[in-house]
Amino acid sequence: MSNPVVIDAVPGTSYADLTREFDAPVEAVFAAHADPEKYVRWIGPRGLDSTITHWDFRTGGGYGFEQSDEHGTYGFRGVIHTVVENELIIQTFEYLGAPHEVSLDRLRFESLPGGRSRLVSRSVFTSTEALEAMIAEGMEVGVVEGYEKLDELLAAG
Amino acid sequence: MSNPVVIDAVPGTSYADLTREFDAPVEAVFAAHADPEKYVRWIGPRGLDSTITHWDFRTGGGYGFEQSDEHGTYGFRGVIHTVVENELIIQTFEYLGAPHEVSLDRLRFESLPGGRSRLVSRSVFTSTEALEAMIAEGMEVGVVEGYEKLDELLAAG
Repeated sequence: MSNPVVIDAVPGTSYADLTREFDAPVEAVFAAHADPEKYVRWIGPRGLDSTITHWDFRTGGGYGFEQSDEHGTYGFRGVIHTVVENELIIQTFEYLGAPHEVSLDRLRFESLPGGRSRLVSRSVFTSTEALEAMIAEGMEVGVVEGYEKLDELLAAG
Repeated sequence: MSNPVVIDAVPGTSYADLTREFDAPVEAVFAAHADPEKYVRWIGPRGLDSTITHWDFRTGGGYGFEQSDEHGTYGFRGVIHTVVENELIIQTFEYLGAPHEVSLDRLRFESLPGGRSRLVSRSVFTSTEALEAMIAEGMEVGVVEGYEKLDELLAAG
């Protein structure tokens, strides 16, 4: 059975918090965010094929990827403010279908007993409306299904 | 007489809005943000000497600068998500004295009649507490005095 995702978007604020545990060590979960060949296998909802368009995973770097289904191709990109290996990623995020609606994502990676780990993230949007638009566009489905795929990738070792 | 800065931080949110008009064309105000030799002459409060430590002003780039007074040296850095010339800058911002407290700044440049212009910015913090800390540390003084220095730079041509 999959670990639950807890998503908490407090009404009136412009940020959403997310907590998700994994049955894998923090190093493996961090590596699945840092390595483009791993990242592309789990990011986003099921039913979309992902392709990396740019990858420079370091403090001061950036990233980009595309996702395709039968309806079209969706682009995403961001710059990476901070990388602390196995601990912290701070980066921006933009869905190119909503140009200039940029969010700031802070991902903290925590080690848990028994070879498990926890990811605690906060996504900060430039307005409450931008956050609500992302939720309406299905952010939660993408997050839940993405982490299920990440579980499968981690279990496969 | 100087143009007023309007700063609006709505209680309970984690962002602050700023509006400032300039008696100079939008191209000149944008250039004062894009050119490190100009930027270093106006950024921050009076009584601090600024030095650029990194400058790569483009979409996907980054920047860094230091400010010094008799008490010490203060470092700042960020990555640049978007640059649209004379229109828009979206970038991150970190005061290195408060590591990993990163904000996202969106600066819109607007042309006004009579060779004037308006800067409208929103700074989004990862929490209400982080915004309040920046206000307590004197963000407003730095902004007000910085734009007065920018007025002087623009008037000097």
